[in-house]
Amino acid sequence: MSWFRSLIQRSSIRHPLKPSKATPSLTLLLSEFSTGTEAAASREAGLGPTRPGDKARVVVLGSGWAGCRLMKGIDTKAYDVVCVSPRNHMVFTPLLASTCVGTLEFRSVAEPIGRIQPAISREPGSYFFLANCISVDAQNHVVHCQTKTDGVGTLEPWNFNISYDKLVIAAGAEASTFGIKGVKEHAIFLREVYHAQEIRRKLLLNLMLSDVPGVTEEEKRRLLHCVVVGGGPTGVEFSGELSDFILRDVHQTYAHVKDYIHVTLIEANEILSSFDDRLRRYATKQLTKSGVRLVRGIVKDVQPEKIVLTDGTDVPYGLLVWSTGVGPSPFVKNLEFPKAPGGRIGVDEWLRVPSVQDVFSIGDCCGFLESTGKPTLPALAQVAERQGKYLANLLNQIGKIGGGHANAAKDMELGKQFVYKHLGSMATVGRFKALVDLRQSKEAKGLSMAGFASWFIWRSAYLTRVVSWRNRFYVAINWTTTFVFGRDISRI
Amino acid sequence: MSWFRSLIQRSSIRHPLKPSKATPSLTLLLSEFSTGTEAAASREAGLGPTRPGDKARVVVLGSGWAGCRLMKGIDTKAYDVVCVSPRNHMVFTPLLASTCVGTLEFRSVAEPIGRIQPAISREPGSYFFLANCISVDAQNHVVHCQTKTDGVGTLEPWNFNISYDKLVIAAGAEASTFGIKGVKEHAIFLREVYHAQEIRRKLLLNLMLSDVPGVTEEEKRRLLHCVVVGGGPTGVEFSGELSDFILRDVHQTYAHVKDYIHVTLIEANEILSSFDDRLRRYATKQLTKSGVRLVRGIVKDVQPEKIVLTDGTDVPYGLLVWSTGVGPSPFVKNLEFPKAPGGRIGVDEWLRVPSVQDVFSIGDCCGFLESTGKPTLPALAQVAERQGKYLANLLNQIGKIGGGHANAAKDMELGKQFVYKHLGSMATVGRFKALVDLRQSKEAKGLSMAGFASWFIWRSAYLTRVVSWRNRFYVAINWTTTFVFGRDISRI
Repeated sequence: MSWFRSLIQRSSIRHPLKPSKATPSLTLLLSEFSTGTEAAASREAGLGPTRPGDKARVVVLGSGWAGCRLMKGIDTKAYDVVCVSPRNHMVFTPLLASTCVGTLEFRSVAEPIGRIQPAISREPGSYFFLANCISVDAQNHVVHCQTKTDGVGTLEPWNFNISYDKLVIAAGAEASTFGIKGVKEHAIFLREVYHAQEIRRKLLLNLMLSDVPGVTEEEKRRLLHCVVVGGGPTGVEFSGELSDFILRDVHQTYAHVKDYIHVTLIEANEILSSFDDRLRRYATKQLTKSGVRLVRGIVKDVQPEKIVLTDGTDVPYGLLVWSTGVGPSPFVKNLEFPKAPGGRIGVDEWLRVPSVQDVFSIGDCCGFLESTGKPTLPALAQVAERQGKYLANLLNQIGKIGGGHANAAKDMELGKQFVYKHLGSMATVGRFKALVDLRQSKEAKGLSMAGFASWFIWRSAYLTRVVSWRNRFYVAINWTTTFVFGRDISRI
Repeated sequence: MSWFRSLIQRSSIRHPLKPSKATPSLTLLLSEFSTGTEAAASREAGLGPTRPGDKARVVVLGSGWAGCRLMKGIDTKAYDVVCVSPRNHMVFTPLLASTCVGTLEFRSVAEPIGRIQPAISREPGSYFFLANCISVDAQNHVVHCQTKTDGVGTLEPWNFNISYDKLVIAAGAEASTFGIKGVKEHAIFLREVYHAQEIRRKLLLNLMLSDVPGVTEEEKRRLLHCVVVGGGPTGVEFSGELSDFILRDVHQTYAHVKDYIHVTLIEANEILSSFDDRLRRYATKQLTKSGVRLVRGIVKDVQPEKIVLTDGTDVPYGLLVWSTGVGPSPFVKNLEFPKAPGGRIGVDEWLRVPSVQDVFSIGDCCGFLESTGKPTLPALAQVAERQGKYLANLLNQIGKIGGGHANAAKDMELGKQFVYKHLGSMATVGRFKALVDLRQSKEAKGLSMAGFASWFIWRSAYLTRVVSWRNRFYVAINWTTTFVFGRDISRI
């Protein structure tokens, strides 16, 4: 090829006055595109079973907290890692709310998988596949997948198969809509980076449009009414960030419309229900003080410009963010494994799917089988991260004693069971204020903190948890810049 | 309102077990959304003429280099500033190519107008309107505009009018396609931040998809063939950045497909035709060395997966970037003012549109009328910036001697004419290498530099030109991070 290339360069550059000279070399160039022999590679291709001498293959479905923590910890001398996910990065979810209003940049909360586990981009047997898993054939140790080609107009999605030695299902959960009509069409969730981008674009667009002559007072109020449904940590943090953005930035940079913008947080029960009473009262006071309207209500219907509550009240909105928790995804629902309470994939004390060989599940998509007598763990980053770490160690240990390949670990002693110890919950409520609940369960007694000190602990804790040094650095820089210069308001 | 709000909070928070209590207060809350009286504000609204005692109003169409430099320099004690543009930020175009591959972040090259001219967000008579100007009624000193509502599903665009005392048309130019079929549909330009975002998303998507089992060799080569059409500074800089990205980052993070990715630069004449011969040879050598294939050719047709050259050659591509210069936009074409050569708005030596009162034009959309005997200036950031600065001073001076209002400057002596002095041209060609041509015209003799020293000068020059300290800081941080950690490859 280098011969072709130098020929092309010679003919096209050294004789700048004779463009026709380029023709023969372009034809040669083109021959590169139809080298034929392999061009007929089947659309039904994939990765076949590993051979006894090869490294064993771990297939990981998903790239959230659980899957990424597992991949980070896996021993790549013992295993090839193949990750199947519709996104090539992990989202640092606890900081996602901050990106919607420009306190942090989007890239600061996205960690590419190739940086979490470099073997995936370098080792010949390790891969990242941008695809969704469609079904699992546990009898034959194969997963069926379909590529995700949105954005390439010229490619139809195609199917392929991957044989696994160990399968880790870490495909996460889906935002719950409770079957309410219009949620998926009109509300924005807050789970992926593109959700945060959409919220930011819409918020800035509404701010700008409400300042243009010809908009009515009523439309202006509607456009600038930001409604958050769901009073869990995500909803509360987002409301806090939003009201802080309004107080600090909108009042300065959108002075003409500042009196029209409002935030309403709608929750059917009480906000932050898992937190200590004292903390909950503190959060309520802080949110109220910063201008967030807390409303008790249940949403019945979501329409393009308003939501309807069960008591018949209409609430017009310009931006609607939906964060009412998660439930099992269609993929998980369709899997033919025994389920745990709540429809999650049922696992035993070692996070195995016990009805089949070599299948494990971690994170929001799994739950302990009733037979284990253990409670379902909350859908928290903390739980997923701990499960990923535990399973990486378990698989490494299995690999070390020769059980890495398919069906090779049937009768092995697996050692310690997975035990979850809750380290506490945290939530920010606006600028320099956070709640830290260090109790191990809702009923326990223990330390709870609110205010500046806990904000400081919160920020430090997150800084050390962001996976790479690059992103730790960027988050620190983002926070400093926002502090010094204010938030960025360009709508790009 | 505060009464309503405290009522709502009381009823919804203090009695957490009685959600029905919230109902009456929500009804009150809602009354806010239909306060009626102003709700009938007409869709044909706008800003009427200023009165003699008021500040005069400068209306600026566009937010590029010319318009933003003008707004930055305008004396807001003498004038209210109203900016009409479809984007709320200025794009720092010389660094845009770097953002496509993650060397710089998108926000580092976007400067919000509110930061360039703070009066726009604070002064009661100054505004930014997210809209396009549709037509100019110079007789009545009015512009007709239409809002840009893409992204708000619930709002139809509406029209409004703005009366001006002085009008500055700085609406820029449009990418030329030379009437070639399919360019607009399949190629990506490189003029706005969203173009750079699209290029980055597509490039990463193609890299990922070409690694999935089932893709043929031929498709893989096509997906990873990046074609750049146009060998001006933008095309050359983008090709250089891209090949550097391939050498430094793709080889590490997409090791499986690294041998399939190629960059081809197609130019009908010679690359960097405005530069000194020696620099051009240097650029050719550097690009070739870093793996860019330089091809002489003229594009005839652009199809979804390939372009066809006039000699009949097909060139398959996965990513197509089009940067063959600019021409007048439909808005400029439709204006009924005398035109300069090339279809631009004709201006006199003071950048006035001489056939009417109080209308000026600056940047890529204007050109000297033939009657001035002056040549058309190149469509460069440098020219636009100098014109914006000149016109801000001219308007300030007119305002000072009482000519700010409509028709008040009819017989005024305008002082010095606009004279353009070329400071030199610069282009980067990959890592640590740049060309700096300090000659004042193509025929002149003078200093030209290539290599590391000029790269250093180039980077420093840009750092001091990026408008705000915030962005200067971010660009420096971005460059440092890329240098230390490599580029970011998450596809968000």
